[in-house]
Amino acid sequence: MRCKFCDKPAFIKLHYPKMYLCEEHFKEYFERKVKRTIERYKLLRPDERILVVVSGGKDSAVTAYILKKLGYNIECLHINLGIGEYSEKSESYAKKQCEALGVPLHIVRVRELLGKGIGEVKTRRAVCSYCGLTKRYIFNKFAHDNGFNAVATGHNLDDEASFIFANLMNWNTQYLAKQGPLLPGEGKFVKKVKPLYELTEREVVAYALANGIKYMVEECPYARGATTLEYKAILNEMEEKRPGTKINFVKGFLRKKKLFEAELQEVELKECRICGMPAQGKKCSFCNFWGLEKPLEFNGRITPP
Amino acid sequence: MRCKFCDKPAFIKLHYPKMYLCEEHFKEYFERKVKRTIERYKLLRPDERILVVVSGGKDSAVTAYILKKLGYNIECLHINLGIGEYSEKSESYAKKQCEALGVPLHIVRVRELLGKGIGEVKTRRAVCSYCGLTKRYIFNKFAHDNGFNAVATGHNLDDEASFIFANLMNWNTQYLAKQGPLLPGEGKFVKKVKPLYELTEREVVAYALANGIKYMVEECPYARGATTLEYKAILNEMEEKRPGTKINFVKGFLRKKKLFEAELQEVELKECRICGMPAQGKKCSFCNFWGLEKPLEFNGRITPP
Repeated sequence: MRCKFCDKPAFIKLHYPKMYLCEEHFKEYFERKVKRTIERYKLLRPDERILVVVSGGKDSAVTAYILKKLGYNIECLHINLGIGEYSEKSESYAKKQCEALGVPLHIVRVRELLGKGIGEVKTRRAVCSYCGLTKRYIFNKFAHDNGFNAVATGHNLDDEASFIFANLMNWNTQYLAKQGPLLPGEGKFVKKVKPLYELTEREVVAYALANGIKYMVEECPYARGATTLEYKAILNEMEEKRPGTKINFVKGFLRKKKLFEAELQEVELKECRICGMPAQGKKCSFCNFWGLEKPLEFNGRITPP
Repeated sequence: MRCKFCDKPAFIKLHYPKMYLCEEHFKEYFERKVKRTIERYKLLRPDERILVVVSGGKDSAVTAYILKKLGYNIECLHINLGIGEYSEKSESYAKKQCEALGVPLHIVRVRELLGKGIGEVKTRRAVCSYCGLTKRYIFNKFAHDNGFNAVATGHNLDDEASFIFANLMNWNTQYLAKQGPLLPGEGKFVKKVKPLYELTEREVVAYALANGIKYMVEECPYARGATTLEYKAILNEMEEKRPGTKINFVKGFLRKKKLFEAELQEVELKECRICGMPAQGKKCSFCNFWGLEKPLEFNGRITPP
């Protein structure tokens, strides 16, 4: 098959809208789509300082790559989770990716910072749950302390669709009200954005391939595995039968999201007495979970590239 | 395998809760579950006159059978849709079912009543859409004209789960607010109840088999086919991996249903100027669709059993 727009052989067959594209026209398509996502949801302004959280995986690598290519002012942050070899390999991928881009990379290592790696804490809480809590706190605090205007993450359409799907299937609707491509900043919460919100995992993989972006393929050994992957498989099955299922499902959700806002509790946020960040009780959930007595300070602790 | 409660060989393996049951104990289980559904959702009172809508298929046949067995005061209504041989066969099954039960059966034939059968009307509206409209109007008007206190339909757990699932996937959330085992009566709307709300299709089939209930197996030739069946297949797939998925999904929905009520428009219902039934405009959607100039009257037109 030939590219829809030129004579070159097709590099990829897109299913929705259905078309064959050569490598160059696919890159163009992908970049235009990211640009449109940024514009449509008003994610970023040209003058903002953006912190891209890079895990070593494909999604965040592509996010950094494309934001840089689109001319945004970015720096990257890698959080080394302290999960043995998996984390060492992830860190080395993140380094290579940022070197290739010529973008400053900051590295925060959970074990150095908190004494224990993810998975080494004795707790009843699920590993993925406190890992998420820890990462979200660290990248927000890091961005806040160092004056970034936005944090960009690599979430793609498949991630978002399966998150919404899982929370609907289990009626955990309280998580849905704040779900979307843009979480506006408020107080000490730095704005969070997802530039790949409308791009499928398959498109992200193809874009990484087309641009020679190397990334960590292995899954985290603690990955929720089963459930999330199951839901992604179901959505892929539906997508195959009805191309456009995922994007229409997610866009439909954004139109109806306000229904779930009725469940948002009006919690008055206080300041955590340890770190001063927003907290529902006396301590924020991060300082509480890790039993901290003094705050993490990232101010000025920027790792040289 | 043996029955969980006695020495007899197992007739069925239930998956959620997981247990093997002999024929007798399965019947007991099924009937207890219907009774509990009726009590939990306050569907019916012992003194009510109930109209069971029987299509000839398994679900409504089982509904009539079990309500009769539980001692309720029931009569049945069959709506012959005028879809060729399919409808003739359906009617004859409905007759046999009611004869076997010794329950009065009323028959309304769409073609006799309205001049055309379902599928013969020239319209842009999908067949299933105006068929649903027509059936709902007829059984409500019939029940209202003849003083019934409730209309019972055969909807089972799979029907309900796939309805909710489909409307979520497509974000047709406006249909969800009024979805449930009980739609209370209001004005000229007779109360609607679904006694099989918590029983799976598989259980209904097994119960029909255990009681020698004969029913129409063929699908309607206009059946939405694809979509609904696809969604049922997906839910069955999830159910197989995680027994209880369907019932937990539907119960979760009932807990959160109030979220969707925000979308209910406060429509002041008027009386249809043709038939006097509730209408949003000058005519109700039934009289409007069928272009009626005088009302259908079912009062006293009860077909002898």
